[in-house]
Amino acid sequence: MPLTGIRILDLTRIISGPYCTSILADMGAEVIKIEAPGEGDPVRHQGVIRDGLSWYFANYNRNKKSVTLDLYSEEGKDILRQLIPSCDVVIENYRPGIMDRMGFGDEALKALRPDIIHCSINGFGTSGPYRDRPAFDFIAQAMSGFMSLNGGENDPPMRAGPPISDLVAGMNGALGVLAALLRRERTGRGDSVSVSLMSSMIGLLSFQASNYFASGELPPRTGNDHGIVAPYGLFETADGQVAIAPSNDAMYEKFLDALELQSLRAHPDFQANADRMLNRDSIKAAIEARTRQETSRYWIERLNQYGVPCGQVLNLREVFDDPQVADQEMAIDVPHPDGQRVRMLGFPIKFAESPCRARAPAPSLGADTAAVLRELGLPEPRIEALRAKGTI
Amino acid sequence: MPLTGIRILDLTRIISGPYCTSILADMGAEVIKIEAPGEGDPVRHQGVIRDGLSWYFANYNRNKKSVTLDLYSEEGKDILRQLIPSCDVVIENYRPGIMDRMGFGDEALKALRPDIIHCSINGFGTSGPYRDRPAFDFIAQAMSGFMSLNGGENDPPMRAGPPISDLVAGMNGALGVLAALLRRERTGRGDSVSVSLMSSMIGLLSFQASNYFASGELPPRTGNDHGIVAPYGLFETADGQVAIAPSNDAMYEKFLDALELQSLRAHPDFQANADRMLNRDSIKAAIEARTRQETSRYWIERLNQYGVPCGQVLNLREVFDDPQVADQEMAIDVPHPDGQRVRMLGFPIKFAESPCRARAPAPSLGADTAAVLRELGLPEPRIEALRAKGTI
Repeated sequence: MPLTGIRILDLTRIISGPYCTSILADMGAEVIKIEAPGEGDPVRHQGVIRDGLSWYFANYNRNKKSVTLDLYSEEGKDILRQLIPSCDVVIENYRPGIMDRMGFGDEALKALRPDIIHCSINGFGTSGPYRDRPAFDFIAQAMSGFMSLNGGENDPPMRAGPPISDLVAGMNGALGVLAALLRRERTGRGDSVSVSLMSSMIGLLSFQASNYFASGELPPRTGNDHGIVAPYGLFETADGQVAIAPSNDAMYEKFLDALELQSLRAHPDFQANADRMLNRDSIKAAIEARTRQETSRYWIERLNQYGVPCGQVLNLREVFDDPQVADQEMAIDVPHPDGQRVRMLGFPIKFAESPCRARAPAPSLGADTAAVLRELGLPEPRIEALRAKGTI
Repeated sequence: MPLTGIRILDLTRIISGPYCTSILADMGAEVIKIEAPGEGDPVRHQGVIRDGLSWYFANYNRNKKSVTLDLYSEEGKDILRQLIPSCDVVIENYRPGIMDRMGFGDEALKALRPDIIHCSINGFGTSGPYRDRPAFDFIAQAMSGFMSLNGGENDPPMRAGPPISDLVAGMNGALGVLAALLRRERTGRGDSVSVSLMSSMIGLLSFQASNYFASGELPPRTGNDHGIVAPYGLFETADGQVAIAPSNDAMYEKFLDALELQSLRAHPDFQANADRMLNRDSIKAAIEARTRQETSRYWIERLNQYGVPCGQVLNLREVFDDPQVADQEMAIDVPHPDGQRVRMLGFPIKFAESPCRARAPAPSLGADTAAVLRELGLPEPRIEALRAKGTI
């Protein structure tokens, strides 16, 4: 697998960090998740719990090991210090400065292992006026400008459904770690990487940001309409709605052919895209008068035959019942030691030779503590004593 | 830089692919963008154009070289065949099967360079019933289930503002390429990677997918409310709104302290989170009666002092005027040869030792054609002849 032999010390919790380390674990890295004794990652207790297991936790922590360690205690920190030299990468999502205060700042990490790679996933960055603010997905969505672009024209600014700032920051963290590993492989040097929820969301502002920079004009929220293309959006059919996206003039012509509405071609209101934008409501009405005559299934087959991008708006049941999603194995069933088969999301990155795999279920709290401490050379009585004290 | 010395052949256009290769170019890779003679990437003509330059194109194509090549002609294909052995990676976003038909399928690429890494960015995957369908961001948002989670409870399913399926697929492509490069560095073997817009979006379904898998119940759209936490959301102030996310009971207590609404603590309707979910509207009203008495600025300072995650909903002007965004350099000005300084998005991944950099502006169409062909050993008269024929 791509990351076989890479050992990652995972000091993260909740979503952004665990998502980052799960991407790397799915690619074959050995991920050692450090958790607080007794409690563990709060996500162990979140989401729908089945037979004592959070399937949400199970999803984001598959392929990882769990070691409990009280990092508030000197003995706990001492064990962490012994563990670090065996790790290629340390990933954490503490607030900036906390690692320094704990005695594990960049210099301390480097002293323990000169070529170490450190990745910080944080709310707003490791410098700047908001550096110490508590972060949360919703806040990053609000402060990044993303919400100002999401939602309908007459709606308030809208948060995206899934916690995308956590997820995109996790992906950026994994990108940074992989790039730093590649550089280390070629230069022998480690590096320190930082990604933030807020900058990760700003990184998604795309053409809306470019257009704002170039024109000084604020882009509007356009809901399901496209900001600069018409017709486009959701169209009613005999039994539902279809999303249709004819993205340019050539595609618009094909769309009219598929609809058998070639008559619209000569209509003075619908000549150029600019005309159609001005008359967005009337062209939509003309098209829906036709699309309402047939089913969604009919239109999806026909429009795809004509090369017009289209599809149904699926809910989660329909998504995971869809034959394409099954073909792509985007839901997988992972056996857990208690006999449950836990359904979770599959792997969006498909390697032909070295595919991502679910090698192990999410660990129970501290499942690997003794094994990892033994590897460090700690004798059994010491391990027992640490356990009795609540350090592990 | 992390990817110094890595050469990437970039056969992509529009957004998903160019975003993928821009991530790698920003990290130091040499990216050779192949474009159709005369036309080039359609994005050259999209978005707001200033003095002949699309700032949208400039953003996603900085740090790249442009080589024009007519891949419909045998001579064009022949030059591509000569170029491939010098490239570590080939990235394309054609529909699956097109590369094979052009004579550049996986086996052909491997024959030209045994350890080559090939990355396909596509709509639905390289197999399955929808493999040949035309793809588009909006369609992937619809068919992935994402739209079923985005928007308010009483709204229709809503597309996200930015083209996030393109962007997240581009990020997954870059993750796949980096992992494959790392594996090649350690095993000498290349690989073929595929990422799709639809699976990339499914990968973002997060706890909503896990909860659906565990319970069989479809998650609702909740707009700016949290699915399982209250109070939470946008709260009115004397001069606007503030996003506030007290994510657990301890945070809720701090929130009441900051509001000086300790009286609510004893209120029978607001004891546990479950009670507060049932009485979401009345607790929101009680809190807004207080937050309306002060400005947004006041509340943001005060709530942050109390450790309660909060922030304003910023529009793009406010985002790029924000001191934190300035500190993080999330807007950068890149000088172009025509004298324009083009403002574009900065780098969300911060490396301490080997930072991402804007080494070069986006190239004019074919700017590097002659230099790259000379490097391949093509004599000047041949280059002139190819130019006269429109092959380059």
